Amino acid sequence: MLRFFAYLALAAGGGLQASRAAALALMPLPVKAERGPGRLAIDAGFGVGATGCWDARLGAALDRFVERVARQTGIFMTAPRLAGGAGATLRVECPGERSEYPALGVDESYTLDVSAEGARIQSVTVWGTLHALATFAQLIGPGPQGWEVPAIHIEDRPRFAWRGLMLDVSRHWMPMEVIERNLDAMAAVKLNVFHWHLSDDQGFRVESRRYPRLHEMGSDGHYYTQEEIRRVVGYARDRGIRVVPEFDIPGHTSSWFVGYPELASGPGPYSISRNFGVFDPAMDPSREEIYTFLDGFFEEMTALFPDPYFHIGGDEVVGKQWSSSPGIQAFAREHGLADNGALQAYFNQRVSKLLQKRGRIMIGWDEVLNPALPKSTVIQSWRGPASLAEAAARGYSGILSSGYYLDHLSPASYHYAVDPLAGGSAQLNSSEAPRILGGEACMWAELVDAETVDSRIWPRAAAIAERLWSPGETTDVASMYDRMEAASRELEWTGVRHRDNYAAMLERLAGDRPAEPLRLLADVCEALGLGPRRAAADYTTQTPLNRLVDAARPESERVRSLERSARAAAAAGAGSAPDRARLREEFRRWVANDAAFQELAEGNSLLDEVKPLSKDLARLGSMGTEILNYLQSGKPAPAAWLARQTRELAPISKPSAELNLAAARPVKVLLDGLAKGSRQAARRNP
Amino acid sequence: MLRFFAYLALAAGGGLQASRAAALALMPLPVKAERGPGRLAIDAGFGVGATGCWDARLGAALDRFVERVARQTGIFMTAPRLAGGAGATLRVECPGERSEYPALGVDESYTLDVSAEGARIQSVTVWGTLHALATFAQLIGPGPQGWEVPAIHIEDRPRFAWRGLMLDVSRHWMPMEVIERNLDAMAAVKLNVFHWHLSDDQGFRVESRRYPRLHEMGSDGHYYTQEEIRRVVGYARDRGIRVVPEFDIPGHTSSWFVGYPELASGPGPYSISRNFGVFDPAMDPSREEIYTFLDGFFEEMTALFPDPYFHIGGDEVVGKQWSSSPGIQAFAREHGLADNGALQAYFNQRVSKLLQKRGRIMIGWDEVLNPALPKSTVIQSWRGPASLAEAAARGYSGILSSGYYLDHLSPASYHYAVDPLAGGSAQLNSSEAPRILGGEACMWAELVDAETVDSRIWPRAAAIAERLWSPGETTDVASMYDRMEAASRELEWTGVRHRDNYAAMLERLAGDRPAEPLRLLADVCEALGLGPRRAAADYTTQTPLNRLVDAARPESERVRSLERSARAAAAAGAGSAPDRARLREEFRRWVANDAAFQELAEGNSLLDEVKPLSKDLARLGSMGTEILNYLQSGKPAPAAWLARQTRELAPISKPSAELNLAAARPVKVLLDGLAKGSRQAARRNP
Repeated sequence: MLRFFAYLALAAGGGLQASRAAALALMPLPVKAERGPGRLAIDAGFGVGATGCWDARLGAALDRFVERVARQTGIFMTAPRLAGGAGATLRVECPGERSEYPALGVDESYTLDVSAEGARIQSVTVWGTLHALATFAQLIGPGPQGWEVPAIHIEDRPRFAWRGLMLDVSRHWMPMEVIERNLDAMAAVKLNVFHWHLSDDQGFRVESRRYPRLHEMGSDGHYYTQEEIRRVVGYARDRGIRVVPEFDIPGHTSSWFVGYPELASGPGPYSISRNFGVFDPAMDPSREEIYTFLDGFFEEMTALFPDPYFHIGGDEVVGKQWSSSPGIQAFAREHGLADNGALQAYFNQRVSKLLQKRGRIMIGWDEVLNPALPKSTVIQSWRGPASLAEAAARGYSGILSSGYYLDHLSPASYHYAVDPLAGGSAQLNSSEAPRILGGEACMWAELVDAETVDSRIWPRAAAIAERLWSPGETTDVASMYDRMEAASRELEWTGVRHRDNYAAMLERLAGDRPAEPLRLLADVCEALGLGPRRAAADYTTQTPLNRLVDAARPESERVRSLERSARAAAAAGAGSAPDRARLREEFRRWVANDAAFQELAEGNSLLDEVKPLSKDLARLGSMGTEILNYLQSGKPAPAAWLARQTRELAPISKPSAELNLAAARPVKVLLDGLAKGSRQAARRNP
Repeated sequence: MLRFFAYLALAAGGGLQASRAAALALMPLPVKAERGPGRLAIDAGFGVGATGCWDARLGAALDRFVERVARQTGIFMTAPRLAGGAGATLRVECPGERSEYPALGVDESYTLDVSAEGARIQSVTVWGTLHALATFAQLIGPGPQGWEVPAIHIEDRPRFAWRGLMLDVSRHWMPMEVIERNLDAMAAVKLNVFHWHLSDDQGFRVESRRYPRLHEMGSDGHYYTQEEIRRVVGYARDRGIRVVPEFDIPGHTSSWFVGYPELASGPGPYSISRNFGVFDPAMDPSREEIYTFLDGFFEEMTALFPDPYFHIGGDEVVGKQWSSSPGIQAFAREHGLADNGALQAYFNQRVSKLLQKRGRIMIGWDEVLNPALPKSTVIQSWRGPASLAEAAARGYSGILSSGYYLDHLSPASYHYAVDPLAGGSAQLNSSEAPRILGGEACMWAELVDAETVDSRIWPRAAAIAERLWSPGETTDVASMYDRMEAASRELEWTGVRHRDNYAAMLERLAGDRPAEPLRLLADVCEALGLGPRRAAADYTTQTPLNRLVDAARPESERVRSLERSARAAAAAGAGSAPDRARLREEFRRWVANDAAFQELAEGNSLLDEVKPLSKDLARLGSMGTEILNYLQSGKPAPAAWLARQTRELAPISKPSAELNLAAARPVKVLLDGLAKGSRQAARRNP
């Protein structure tokens, strides 16, 4: 697969312009792609048609697709959709195997052929067609004669059947539009499971008609009505996405107990948690009424969520309430349950049976793993690949989430390197390995809200989507970043606001004044993830998320590009001249920016904490310039001078205001290059 | 009023930081505003309450307001709305005069008092309260201790009762979200009439159940359902905005005739116009059936639109169909109608009576003015102030739109200088002048679509809103621009996408590659208006509006700021040093940008036309640098050199690719300054 992207770039030889190479940046990479001669023009006459598998769902999908193409290109389409294939620019052929709902493991393969005359999609199911359309949209770019798609033959199918995104809507409320636009973005990168974390200590988010105090008292008024739930399920299904609901039990349940304290293992009253962490409240596994309650609850919820999988969480049960309850302890002794782990296993077995009764397969986090559970149970691993491998070896299916936690704000390259079939799973035999169904990116919402969540999911989740879709040998990190950056821009056409909101939040911080000096700084900063941020400040659900750290991105595209220049500039030779010039210009700006920034920040408390970062950036600019001077002079730098720069860089490279000044990295690359060269020179001329 | 803004800046002396001065940038400026000591903190405890006038409408308005404040500040509000005033940060007091619909001329005044302890709004009607809330939102800014509003006493009321925005949804379709977000933006700058141009040759945009072929055959499927119309009317009313529908008759009616050719004066068949211009088809004024049809039509439409005013267009009737119809000519002779003008007057009289029957007052463009019409008729002047004054002198009410055509893409300063009570109207006596009800900004949609329309309306319509609201002496252009730029940023919080879409369109043009070099160029370009663009290319309703001219703004904020620097830099003395340094930096970037731009544009047909502009920008950068060198040296420039620069500037200052390279203006300012200084030096040392 490495060869594929190289091929796309090389095949063109001199003919393929740089702009077209970027437009070919597919994510996830298909299994097979071969460029042909020529290009298909996309103009106002662009139309799509289908033969063999026409139904209302496909019709709606094609309408949405044409609308997307119109938005992406800015062209008014005059004859968008044709009932048959005749006269259509893009023809869809699939034998017409209807499926009402995208079942796990269904055939999602497709082929896409594009020539100068037209394009053809072939697939077994409508779900394959949807993936082909997403690929086609990514191929569209501006060419020498207008909008176009290059001639190409693509054969494609997913590596894993379960490719998910988990979204926590409990810690911070996510309105309907957030859900819908993220489903569109998921479909664009071929993710096919929306795992909806609907309840936790900080909020119960679904209307329950049977137990109305759940949403009435447990949500601060922020919940999805049953009609909205149905709308989301339908919206997702139309895009080939399954919806797996999660109601986390028996722990993480404070919000349930506000209205129903009798479910808890300890005396109430309870309130919605405003803080974050792992809390004591847990359901009482010893009371038969609990199971009656859950039976009724599952009856109501399984009517809303058609997916055969039902997530019961099951993570992080503290057990403190259980240990301190004489009644529960007596129950445990009576039933031969040796410890709290055994108590939870008992609870899970009961829950599993209730779900089985409703035709549902239970899925839970690592902790639910227990020999007493049916082998159909799915384990979602947040602890690591070892526990996933263990589950598979013991006959359970599993999906990987460890390594895919988006809220840690790790670089995309980190997630990209995590493979569900690596680590412990690499040792699995051929009957065990297929039990690894795939993985899920997880977006926990302690420190994101409706405004910032998109920028924490996208574009990094696209890299995880590629890991789960593309062949395992697709591992070139540089290629991934190139394509992810293009995908990031294209994703805006799906409606997610990771780029729009960045600009708006910076303007908010600038207090309605030109935000340019702030933007220059923000562009080279990276936000810290959940752990370090919680260590830095005492966050609650009410803490405003309106600081620079909330606007700043997890990874700086600009810095990545500067690092590339720095590597080239650190090398000797004339070839490094353009990169050196570019860095000089950048460093000049960093130095000049501080005065403008300090003026902007004057009297603005929101920017107070950022002032030192701006000063550090100016310092980096000066240092970078001096290093370039040495490099350009060809003379070695004195060891003492080098040591001083290294000492100065150290504090600048440490987080401040919950941000990393990523700009330090290219300067470090230059400094290391200079130091190496200087040492070599010293050895030559001792 | 000039004193007011100066006062805001001066009152602070050393204490008021620059950032706070910007936050005080109110638009429209209030009648009276006095700063007090201190500031009111806006934090999570911010809440609003009302006494005396509590009703569902005000309740909803306060909810929206708190939500807006939360969005604008990024703060989660914990106790947003209180039924009474107790404990509220902001208290609303109005005696409770209920009004279901914002009638023309209703009391819109308010007072707003803010102190460190809290804020109080007093108004006679809920409409005044809404204006006060809009003012309060503009006052919020980040201060030294967090978000705040300065202590202030404001007394405010509008100068004109009719302050409108006309939006053409016929030439290009504008979906519901475009309408709704623009209503929110209108409310933010206290505009109170939404004039909805619902039919024209290019489309009939309302569902008619009585005459369904109107929308079925005349709209390409792009029309508002009756339910949507009701939603818009309610949405507008809740924001203090009247909705005045316009159905343009008897000309501009091709789209009506597609389904009902029998209404036309010439034989059919007819089709929806794809081109722009003034077309021949017109209703047949000689047929009685026309009036029966219109009577039924008005019955249906007046049930949808509660406003007492109903706009019948009446402009640009060609008369060619009338002249060539023997039947119509015979009718004219029979009724003593001397010419086509008289025929149209006859038609208008009939229409006026039909509307009177339904309790509606007719409003039409200049051409409808005729002594036979009742004096209640309102004339909307697109021809100029003279015709407006004439109408007022003859006893008719009028509103001004000449000078407020946003689609011409004139500078805000141009619109700002147009006063409904200046020109011919200045001569009106005290009984005539009050007949000038106000004005309307007009957004004709030949060359805008849902994506670009916001950037053609905002922020310039805010300057027109100020002209119509604030006292006539409010005429300081520099102050207007400062405040309009701040308002432009704040307007994004209302949902209009004039800033978001700019970025997205540039990224589209860049083909998913980093758009920076394009953005630098776009930031110093200005798009041409309707006239020159139609002269440059043959536009139809299908022509894609996806070029740089469509993304580029009508006015460059960056160039305006550079012109200011250029004026300072052209002056001698040490004070000009920072501006000269700033210009040098800018000119450097212009020169350096061309290589990056040309690389980006390679093989991208959408950017082909822009390549010469980028080269011109680089040339401007070089020229600017040379001029600065002369200025800085203090030596005069040779006359021949100066003449050569002037010659070179001339073609660069001419439009290209339907864009003006506004960057030429600051260079021209510098050159003129240098030339003046050089001439003076030559006179001193001949």
